[in-house]
Amino acid sequence: MSGTFVIAQGGGPTAVINQTMVGAALEVRRKHPGAKVLGSIHGVRGIRDGNYVDLSAIPEEQLRLIAGTPSAALGSTRDKPDAAYCELVLKGLQKVGADAFIYIGGNDTSGTQQILTDAADGKIAFVHAPKTIDNDLVENDHVPGFISAAEFVAGAFLSVDLDFRALPGIYVAIVMGRHAGFLTAASAAWRLDGDSGPHLIYVPERAFSTERFIEDVRSTLDRHKRCIVAVSEGVSTADGKALVESLVPPEKLERDQHGNVKLSGSDLTAALEHALAEGLPGKRARVDALGYMPRGYVGAINAVDAREAFDAGAFAVTVAGEGGGSVAVTYDGDKTVLKKVPLASVAGKTRHMPDDFMQPDANQLSEKGMAYLKRLVPEKYKVGKPFV
Amino acid sequence: MSGTFVIAQGGGPTAVINQTMVGAALEVRRKHPGAKVLGSIHGVRGIRDGNYVDLSAIPEEQLRLIAGTPSAALGSTRDKPDAAYCELVLKGLQKVGADAFIYIGGNDTSGTQQILTDAADGKIAFVHAPKTIDNDLVENDHVPGFISAAEFVAGAFLSVDLDFRALPGIYVAIVMGRHAGFLTAASAAWRLDGDSGPHLIYVPERAFSTERFIEDVRSTLDRHKRCIVAVSEGVSTADGKALVESLVPPEKLERDQHGNVKLSGSDLTAALEHALAEGLPGKRARVDALGYMPRGYVGAINAVDAREAFDAGAFAVTVAGEGGGSVAVTYDGDKTVLKKVPLASVAGKTRHMPDDFMQPDANQLSEKGMAYLKRLVPEKYKVGKPFV
Repeated sequence: MSGTFVIAQGGGPTAVINQTMVGAALEVRRKHPGAKVLGSIHGVRGIRDGNYVDLSAIPEEQLRLIAGTPSAALGSTRDKPDAAYCELVLKGLQKVGADAFIYIGGNDTSGTQQILTDAADGKIAFVHAPKTIDNDLVENDHVPGFISAAEFVAGAFLSVDLDFRALPGIYVAIVMGRHAGFLTAASAAWRLDGDSGPHLIYVPERAFSTERFIEDVRSTLDRHKRCIVAVSEGVSTADGKALVESLVPPEKLERDQHGNVKLSGSDLTAALEHALAEGLPGKRARVDALGYMPRGYVGAINAVDAREAFDAGAFAVTVAGEGGGSVAVTYDGDKTVLKKVPLASVAGKTRHMPDDFMQPDANQLSEKGMAYLKRLVPEKYKVGKPFV
Repeated sequence: MSGTFVIAQGGGPTAVINQTMVGAALEVRRKHPGAKVLGSIHGVRGIRDGNYVDLSAIPEEQLRLIAGTPSAALGSTRDKPDAAYCELVLKGLQKVGADAFIYIGGNDTSGTQQILTDAADGKIAFVHAPKTIDNDLVENDHVPGFISAAEFVAGAFLSVDLDFRALPGIYVAIVMGRHAGFLTAASAAWRLDGDSGPHLIYVPERAFSTERFIEDVRSTLDRHKRCIVAVSEGVSTADGKALVESLVPPEKLERDQHGNVKLSGSDLTAALEHALAEGLPGKRARVDALGYMPRGYVGAINAVDAREAFDAGAFAVTVAGEGGGSVAVTYDGDKTVLKKVPLASVAGKTRHMPDDFMQPDANQLSEKGMAYLKRLVPEKYKVGKPFV
């Protein structure tokens, strides 16, 4: 394959998505000297509109600098192409003589590659390279981007727990994750001891009840004099409604352009803060959203995550040579192994956090859940136990 | 002085306040072998209640581990003692035979030391060791705790700007700082170039207008296709009301136990998000509070800040030997110099960000403001310029 590779980045950025892009670009340079690598600007939108940067023309040193930079240097998109859009993308790829299209992203991105594969004539290799802080891709042990995000979340909760030891109260942080609780669970990775927060963890895999939540907080305050809580933005009540829908009147709910309720805007934090003020009057309570920090904070780029993301990009070039597919990050009990899996086995599927990662009767991780986290996010900072 | 030193920590924790505590404890050990060092639990409250930890009995290695740990290891307090409370604190100090009381904190803490000095008989040396992420202590060039907090804020805005280059929209982060804009201004410290966010910076030193804000965001979107905004929690409208008071109906305002309006809770973020949705309909907009992260994120402890905080604690022991006073971190044009200043020159005063740190006609830092920040928070991460 000495022709043209197109690379794009889709969905929410991560701290290491540029590693994957540069890993692919440099692997093409190594394996297929003379081949062209076009970076599409803002995902498939750049292919549709003919908007590219020629990555082949950029010095390796500059590419490596970009690899170490968080967020998607090519720009990203939330576009989920339908058949008509895909037709335009295919035409765009043909126009530049693409032999392969490597699209770095999560579930939606792998779905797009599946649609394009089905619509194309087999002359272009479609490759999905995995990326998501949600860690919710099936076939993967963990997904590039998750470890760095998890490290930020673990550090944030370690820090805020120390803060609330000094000045007790209730603290709730909303953590990204629509369908999978992995990132919210990472809040527990660096707990110092049994007294440490987070004391309560709410994940999308389990139904949320505001009444039960208030009771959980109350009994935690009795036990620990403070209460640190991690809540996934995607938690739903037992009727399947997003939490924000159960707390905010319908006419006040913000919606995106697709009509989806905005899960984790300020409405959710405000509604939870008011629920606490009402249920536990007189208690100091604060609800924040960790927001975008976990997915790209420049000070929490994990070295293992960066290397795995780079390697996944390089391996995507191998998969392109084999006709396409999805790159999966697997674990053989000892080390991470990259594998090629069919696009169809990943596309449109969501991996949930296994039920036994949580204790059956408490809002806490099980030993199994902790072991998984500790493997991916081992302790990083030496911290002394406070006197309070 | 070979008797008893009492040390306490007051107000909001910082990433390096334990350095100051341990700096003082180890300096006593070095200078006054045999002296006792009592750490009061939860600020002056521990003195009032006779609740101490004997820091003299703790091995140096363990103390140094605690020094590197963010937040106040002795616990902190928001208590602002009145005359009657101070009387109890004085009795408490006399009961343990205290020769000196070193209280680490900000404005309120120095005020407490002033009251205690006035009420005592001159036999106890009262020392204030400076600490605040707000950087608002007079007589100081900068205050221990600020540099680490500023580094977190600088990194957060660098990161979120990269995120919004990839997926454009409006992003607003509320930054701590009731009266002084230094920490919010730190959001600009690591801008990559003229296109970088934060594009708009609102500090408490300047009156805020919601209408003007919406117009500022609109014109920034025209120019940069995205808009990144830093807002101090303490910004007020021209009538002197806190922003949250101008946006949230009075009956819905949350108040603390002193009746003060809660400046930066979720009400403010939600109100600003709604103001944006109304003023700029259809634009993707997100408002978050950076919350507690800046004051103690374990991954953003600056080494210079840590050293200066430690040295300020050690110097507090010298000041104790000279009868008491406040430790000030000054700058002689070349390096940081610790000085003793009278408590009265610091107590109860607020240092505002100089007006000429901001451009006269724009919500941006001036060259002078940038020079100050760049001196304290030099660039730390190598970042490549994205293609978008």
